[in-house]
Amino acid sequence: MPFTTETQPGVSAGVAEATRGFVLNHAMLRVKDPQVALDFYTRVLGMRLLRKLDFPEMKFSLYFLHRSVEGEAVPEDVGERTAWTFAQRGLLELTHNWGTEDDAGFKYHDGNAQPQGFGHICFSVPDLAAAVRWFDQNQVAFVKRPDQGKMKDVAFIKDPDGYWIEIVEPGLLKHLGR
Amino acid sequence: MPFTTETQPGVSAGVAEATRGFVLNHAMLRVKDPQVALDFYTRVLGMRLLRKLDFPEMKFSLYFLHRSVEGEAVPEDVGERTAWTFAQRGLLELTHNWGTEDDAGFKYHDGNAQPQGFGHICFSVPDLAAAVRWFDQNQVAFVKRPDQGKMKDVAFIKDPDGYWIEIVEPGLLKHLGR
Repeated sequence: MPFTTETQPGVSAGVAEATRGFVLNHAMLRVKDPQVALDFYTRVLGMRLLRKLDFPEMKFSLYFLHRSVEGEAVPEDVGERTAWTFAQRGLLELTHNWGTEDDAGFKYHDGNAQPQGFGHICFSVPDLAAAVRWFDQNQVAFVKRPDQGKMKDVAFIKDPDGYWIEIVEPGLLKHLGR
Repeated sequence: MPFTTETQPGVSAGVAEATRGFVLNHAMLRVKDPQVALDFYTRVLGMRLLRKLDFPEMKFSLYFLHRSVEGEAVPEDVGERTAWTFAQRGLLELTHNWGTEDDAGFKYHDGNAQPQGFGHICFSVPDLAAAVRWFDQNQVAFVKRPDQGKMKDVAFIKDPDGYWIEIVEPGLLKHLGR
């Protein structure tokens, strides 16, 4: 099968040679308390922490999380692992500005309340019903369950900071937008 | 090499069987004018449009963009391609709420001005200096060039909606956080 893509106004006819090797490495979200966020993303969503990078001068730390791929080899040397981390695609970076976890009233903006911008991240799962049961077992908050709202078979949960996470089962969505 | 990960407070010791097959599929950003955004992401960043999904009842469209991987096979049938799209990792989803492109004063929130939350997406590139030249040739706006600020060898550009995009060359970052 060829690399089939769609044409729409604005879409470039080809891929410029100057962009060879470009990789969409990560999306970054600020989190209030890294211990709470790391528990959620590693225990509930099965991600693994590739690198934590501390910047004491600027009082923040970065956490790079990855959904492990079976048999994938990750360098043990920390410098090599940092470089490897930045060469991957589809990571999540969590930024912790030191001290926010001790401020009871502190809260980040989810992007869906006004002013809007960023909307969500999305995990696809092999079995949506099983994933919903798993989230319920772990007391995860839902924005919308699969049978609610206009878009059936799509769930939205909230991470501990209130960011929305879409949950989809690819095979259920063949009809979408048709 | 084993799958080396780091331990920090909150990080789960193992990956739960219930999360098998979970994939971080995409991050979603709302865009004012899809023609302008698609030109930027396909022509300047070399992404390809896998699927456009229209929801006339709710007056919005979704655009799923992918950095093509050499030789990757994408289904031609649109339903199969929709399912395939949701099974990938590391996509960018752009949401267009119909009509925003005709509102001169309309602007989305970038997440870095107050109220803060989402920060940026990041592309890694094989040659940072060459990428900067390419962005300059294409009149891309910079938040920070690689030689500016405290974090050297890291650039930030802006997409047409003002969202920040970090640009890194993995091999230059081995020293980060040490």
